Amino acid sequence: MSKVIAVNAGSSSLKFTIFEVPSEEVVSSGLVDRIGIGDSNIEIKYGNGEKYEDVTDVKDHEQAINLLLEQLLELHIIDSYDEIAGTGHRIVAGGEIFKDSALLDDEGIQQVEDLADFAPLHNKAEAQGIRAFQKVLPGKPTVGVFDTSFHTTMPEKAYLYSIPMKYYEEHGARRYGAHGTSHRYVANRAAELMGKDIEDLKIITCHLGNGGSITAVDGGKSVDTSMGFTPLAGITMGTRSGDIDASLVSYIMEKEGISDIKEMVNILNNKSGLLGLSGVSSDMRDVESAAADGNHNAQTALDIFYDRVQKYIASYIAVMGGVDAIVFTAGIGENSASTRAGIINEQMDWFGIRLDADKNDTREEAEISAEDSRVKLFTIPTDEELMIVRDTVRLGNITD
Amino acid sequence: MSKVIAVNAGSSSLKFTIFEVPSEEVVSSGLVDRIGIGDSNIEIKYGNGEKYEDVTDVKDHEQAINLLLEQLLELHIIDSYDEIAGTGHRIVAGGEIFKDSALLDDEGIQQVEDLADFAPLHNKAEAQGIRAFQKVLPGKPTVGVFDTSFHTTMPEKAYLYSIPMKYYEEHGARRYGAHGTSHRYVANRAAELMGKDIEDLKIITCHLGNGGSITAVDGGKSVDTSMGFTPLAGITMGTRSGDIDASLVSYIMEKEGISDIKEMVNILNNKSGLLGLSGVSSDMRDVESAAADGNHNAQTALDIFYDRVQKYIASYIAVMGGVDAIVFTAGIGENSASTRAGIINEQMDWFGIRLDADKNDTREEAEISAEDSRVKLFTIPTDEELMIVRDTVRLGNITD
Repeated sequence: MSKVIAVNAGSSSLKFTIFEVPSEEVVSSGLVDRIGIGDSNIEIKYGNGEKYEDVTDVKDHEQAINLLLEQLLELHIIDSYDEIAGTGHRIVAGGEIFKDSALLDDEGIQQVEDLADFAPLHNKAEAQGIRAFQKVLPGKPTVGVFDTSFHTTMPEKAYLYSIPMKYYEEHGARRYGAHGTSHRYVANRAAELMGKDIEDLKIITCHLGNGGSITAVDGGKSVDTSMGFTPLAGITMGTRSGDIDASLVSYIMEKEGISDIKEMVNILNNKSGLLGLSGVSSDMRDVESAAADGNHNAQTALDIFYDRVQKYIASYIAVMGGVDAIVFTAGIGENSASTRAGIINEQMDWFGIRLDADKNDTREEAEISAEDSRVKLFTIPTDEELMIVRDTVRLGNITD
Repeated sequence: MSKVIAVNAGSSSLKFTIFEVPSEEVVSSGLVDRIGIGDSNIEIKYGNGEKYEDVTDVKDHEQAINLLLEQLLELHIIDSYDEIAGTGHRIVAGGEIFKDSALLDDEGIQQVEDLADFAPLHNKAEAQGIRAFQKVLPGKPTVGVFDTSFHTTMPEKAYLYSIPMKYYEEHGARRYGAHGTSHRYVANRAAELMGKDIEDLKIITCHLGNGGSITAVDGGKSVDTSMGFTPLAGITMGTRSGDIDASLVSYIMEKEGISDIKEMVNILNNKSGLLGLSGVSSDMRDVESAAADGNHNAQTALDIFYDRVQKYIASYIAVMGGVDAIVFTAGIGENSASTRAGIINEQMDWFGIRLDADKNDTREEAEISAEDSRVKLFTIPTDEELMIVRDTVRLGNITD
């Protein structure tokens, strides 16, 4: 049977999941980290809970991929490279070019690299990862799956900022959003669970992980999303500030004697959010635990997190003129029942949105709304890798 | 009868309204502009539609006030300075110090001046205006009425940003909001019109002028507001961007070769909003007219304006866990029936919020909700000057 690899390349890491097609069964997954740093961990899960681990120096993505593929042979996860029918690559920024996932030729890979303006740390590494795979697996279809594609259906009023129009026209300064593959997956899965055509549904998807975003999905199409030009905007995140008054950038720089605006943006991306507020951790579990122990700032961080998500949910009801289902997914959304309860609390009752506390006590895919809720509530584990593989099969014309 | 002057001093202007107390009748109003610039216009309205106008050079606020008071005597609007029982001054930034309007002594005026960090163009001019009045009218009570005071009741989760806590603790980086006097007036007026105690009501007030902000008023207290650390944040305004992804600040600076962040913040404050989007004007009437003539960008600007206000309204329903009344006020909110209809459109129907198109066709104080609306809708002309005078009477112990 053919295998397809879903790849997620970061600036110094490479994660992969290998699916058998058409069964869509996961046969292996793993990662190589600290690429170009030294002491890289190589980790490959396979078989019945078996795991291969090694530590070595990996200088670049090409070496990582070579090591990985050799090990796949050695562990008999594959018997020859011929079994690999194609690779699908998660790409952060697709700009206005990639409105769907795309089979990438040399020109396409160059376009991915050229979009690095919108995701400097990601797109370059992703282009490197793709080229490295193509070198080792020549002739196999390579598909790019973009975090932004799902959001390219947003109308002008959602993607334009109220800034001089030339900044959009000349520099592409607009809302692009992110987590599109996840929002797409869980919205479609919710429609399946409801037994309805997604074209007839208004769904709000809450991807709450270390990064987080909320999306309004009307008739299967993203019509608004909380992340913006970059993933900095929107709700409070693990280390990202989400929405702030842009004046704060210059004010804090002046007060703190920060002269480089990139340093300030870095603080907003990496030292803010739950971490900056709580002073404890960027991890929701740590913040919840500290709050339970009476840490005031940790409790404040939680209150702010719930508040921001509630506001986005409510605003997207207005955007769509209604809502049929709200879905929680990703690390926090799937695993933290208390976060879901903090968001769908008594404040949402006026909307007729009501959680069932017992049903909510789960980490599995489930409907968690109360019987009398006007809106269905779901927790759905996301599966971006499956979407990547499905798109690779579809666009790579992989038939067996 | 005593008279109280409500004063609004800008960096190069001074507006005033003179009320008789306790009748609260306006006996005169007017302005001096281009202070320190040259060719200042002096304009005083009084009596039965009479108007005094002059053009002269006015070098500072003290001279403006002297010219003004002399002219009040000459025009027999007052017969002696003794008639002036006190002055009330609109002040933009009150920080965390001024939780209510305040009788200002020398220390208080210094505090106003020291808050200039939060409103550089305003607080210094306001402190100058107050000192100038005190020099000419020694011993008369001087009351500061702060745009921010009404919002000091916001809970932590509303006023804190998800940034490192030390920026709040050490530099006061938080949401302060603005237009507080207007939000306070129209919220209380709405409660009067409903014949209910404001303590029992959840009200969303939409102050839509050249600047604009939305406030959630729960039980008479502001619990959230759309303007932020400065008036830049929130909804789309005449020339202000409202909320944007903070990353755009550095991106646009790089792309446009702007090296001074203050220049960028200036663009976001003065070249953005309706003006930046439409390319036509910052004035809603011009933008509406251009849109009606088929100007696509003007129509987009309107669509974005409605969208942002709708989102804030919906999000504040979630914040308060409901809403009893929504109020429109200020230049656009009072005068543009089409804007109100653009905001309370069919998208709000799911919430049960419904406008009566006929009732909405007004520029007067009116209830404009449909019979079957779950929420009362009002348009209420704001009256910040009246609030300033009432606070001056209250805090200055002015009895006749």
